[in-house]
Amino acid sequence: MNPTFFKRRLAAIEQIPQLFYLLKWLFLAAIVGIMAGSASAFFLVSLEWVTNFRENNTWIIAFLPLGGLAIGLLYHYFGSDVVKGNNQLLEEFHSPKKVIPFKMAPLVLFGTIATHLFGGSAGREGTAVQMGGAIADQLTHVFKFKARDRKILIMIGISAGFASVFGTPLAGAVFALEVLIVGRMRYDAILPSFLTAVIADYTCHAWNVGHTVYSIPVVPEISPDGFLWAILAGIIFGLAAMLFSNATHYFTSVFKNVIAYPPLRPVVGGVFIAGAVWLIGTTKYIGLGVPVIVSAFSQDLPFYDFLAKTLFTAFTLGAGFKGGEVTPLFYIGATLGNALAGFIPLPVALLAGMGFVAVFAGASNTPIACTLMGIELFGAESGVFIAIACVVAYLFSGHSGIYGSQVIGSPKH
Amino acid sequence: MNPTFFKRRLAAIEQIPQLFYLLKWLFLAAIVGIMAGSASAFFLVSLEWVTNFRENNTWIIAFLPLGGLAIGLLYHYFGSDVVKGNNQLLEEFHSPKKVIPFKMAPLVLFGTIATHLFGGSAGREGTAVQMGGAIADQLTHVFKFKARDRKILIMIGISAGFASVFGTPLAGAVFALEVLIVGRMRYDAILPSFLTAVIADYTCHAWNVGHTVYSIPVVPEISPDGFLWAILAGIIFGLAAMLFSNATHYFTSVFKNVIAYPPLRPVVGGVFIAGAVWLIGTTKYIGLGVPVIVSAFSQDLPFYDFLAKTLFTAFTLGAGFKGGEVTPLFYIGATLGNALAGFIPLPVALLAGMGFVAVFAGASNTPIACTLMGIELFGAESGVFIAIACVVAYLFSGHSGIYGSQVIGSPKH
Repeated sequence: MNPTFFKRRLAAIEQIPQLFYLLKWLFLAAIVGIMAGSASAFFLVSLEWVTNFRENNTWIIAFLPLGGLAIGLLYHYFGSDVVKGNNQLLEEFHSPKKVIPFKMAPLVLFGTIATHLFGGSAGREGTAVQMGGAIADQLTHVFKFKARDRKILIMIGISAGFASVFGTPLAGAVFALEVLIVGRMRYDAILPSFLTAVIADYTCHAWNVGHTVYSIPVVPEISPDGFLWAILAGIIFGLAAMLFSNATHYFTSVFKNVIAYPPLRPVVGGVFIAGAVWLIGTTKYIGLGVPVIVSAFSQDLPFYDFLAKTLFTAFTLGAGFKGGEVTPLFYIGATLGNALAGFIPLPVALLAGMGFVAVFAGASNTPIACTLMGIELFGAESGVFIAIACVVAYLFSGHSGIYGSQVIGSPKH
Repeated sequence: MNPTFFKRRLAAIEQIPQLFYLLKWLFLAAIVGIMAGSASAFFLVSLEWVTNFRENNTWIIAFLPLGGLAIGLLYHYFGSDVVKGNNQLLEEFHSPKKVIPFKMAPLVLFGTIATHLFGGSAGREGTAVQMGGAIADQLTHVFKFKARDRKILIMIGISAGFASVFGTPLAGAVFALEVLIVGRMRYDAILPSFLTAVIADYTCHAWNVGHTVYSIPVVPEISPDGFLWAILAGIIFGLAAMLFSNATHYFTSVFKNVIAYPPLRPVVGGVFIAGAVWLIGTTKYIGLGVPVIVSAFSQDLPFYDFLAKTLFTAFTLGAGFKGGEVTPLFYIGATLGNALAGFIPLPVALLAGMGFVAVFAGASNTPIACTLMGIELFGAESGVFIAIACVVAYLFSGHSGIYGSQVIGSPKH
């Protein structure tokens, strides 16, 4: 019996600890998935309610500065240790210091709902991910986890939040593996992440909370022309992602430099946003903007929609309102794709769908998660176009991105 | 103007070198993709021809030992520096020594076609990947590449071969990123890999060479039951993958230890395989076995098919015949899934499809590529079941796998 063979026989016993590992993480995934999925369901229902209320009572937008004040005061006096949001999860992952306070979850939930009720322009993935991360990390108090397990816990919180809020379990699972380090994906947490994503998504559906359906009715066969056009579109989506990241960082630093007292920032920001809405006479650039995203798949939209949404969102988030960046990024990508249909000879729905995920891929540096998301939302037929757009946008969006606390694992080129 | 803002302005200029990077790799991807895609097309057509010839003239299987002798002599006297095949590509990637000799391509092509003509049990991805890698690396002679570019060149060769031989561009692109290191995916080559995969797949189709269509007609909604059954199936697929890897390594070392003169190994191996075929009176366990794979999606098959195919393939490859492991792994997974339908209450086509990609995911340690492959082959509807099966199989297949030269980047649990 040679030593290699013997080594292999020993390796066979690997399966026993692996079974324990599986059962342990299945148990934890069930807890985190059910709780984060339920939180997402509640959040989505609340969002729908406040969005409908706002659209039927647009006078409420005049109170955006007041809503901003409430959010600002709350975070300043009760939430200064959770104000960094998504970046805080990333930092805690890279250099663990203390358990994410549970209050991150209710604060971001309240802040986001208030932001949307009064007419800020923001998303929802940040909220879902922060709720998921904060919920998951509480298990650290219950069980005595080592550093490595705590990292996995934070990742499955991210995975659960993302998967359930968008109804895309595979994208959520891969997003959590991909978002922490630019240019590298580690598989330590691959099993816990997938288990939790599936359970969280299932839980959200079990509460009878569904997700918007987008469709790309016609996808052409890939051809040399179509391939080159997809690359060009990817470049433009990448630049739009960079513009968004830089605009958000820019407005954040302007607000910080100009207004010293944090609770005042969303007040001033709210005055500008409410004024702008009143001036241009439309609410299409505030809130989540889901109706505009849907119409980008079929109707002709003004080419500047993506720019307006970039401004409104960067300004809203820079001022200290709460919510995510991702649904606005979907909006920016879909409307930009819609605009590109003017000179790129691909179907408008396909371009909208490519932009939808590719701008997000560029801004968050998660090309594989976004490719999977495109496939989950639009079907496998558009997979190649989606992948090309996401990968090229990832390359052309620069190294900064919306999450300042991402660590760069390998350069993009 | 604060320094961060200035830094960002500088970063914007990143896009200029990125454009050059894009154009450079688009050019190289086109060369490698067109050549490797054409090679795959020629290979697939040849395979079909020899498979049909063999099935209509089964007397030729009696000459398997002679075919083995030809392959053995050829590799011993002309191919000793390319005999390590896929592992050689991985080793050259991890510690570059010299350009992969071009003769790797024609030798593995001839060896595989002879193996299939005379009735060995083997696959085709090894062949396509080796042809792709050898073709791509020749560009190192033409251009003066630095070590980093050469690594990317080897990766796009793998990507091109895999994508075109299976008609799955996304899986091919990710496979090349995933296969080199267990438990880690690096994005250095993400753009070149995707570009080359799409071009290679397009080229193969442009030669009018298609791929077998598999279908999973009914996919149930995910439920707690279905989820747990999918995990159990994944465990079994992972163990089957480990069995295959260990059997292949085992027969390889037995042949090496018992028969000192390499050209004799396939002769002796051929005698046993031809004898076994004659004894059991069926050719269903030799060749690629595509008809059996197709029938695993709809018909009742003997439960031991997967075991027989494992034995036949491990024996064939251990003896020194040529070809890949992947199509046999599809066969093993699909027939094992078919057998599991006896006690796992999921549709037989879904279990066959899950096994198809999951056993391969476990044996090659590429769970994300295999998930994408499942989606490309069977559609997005089965994505969650496919992903769970692939990820769990990856965990339970042990750390060895079919590619001995994979480097372990992070442990599986």
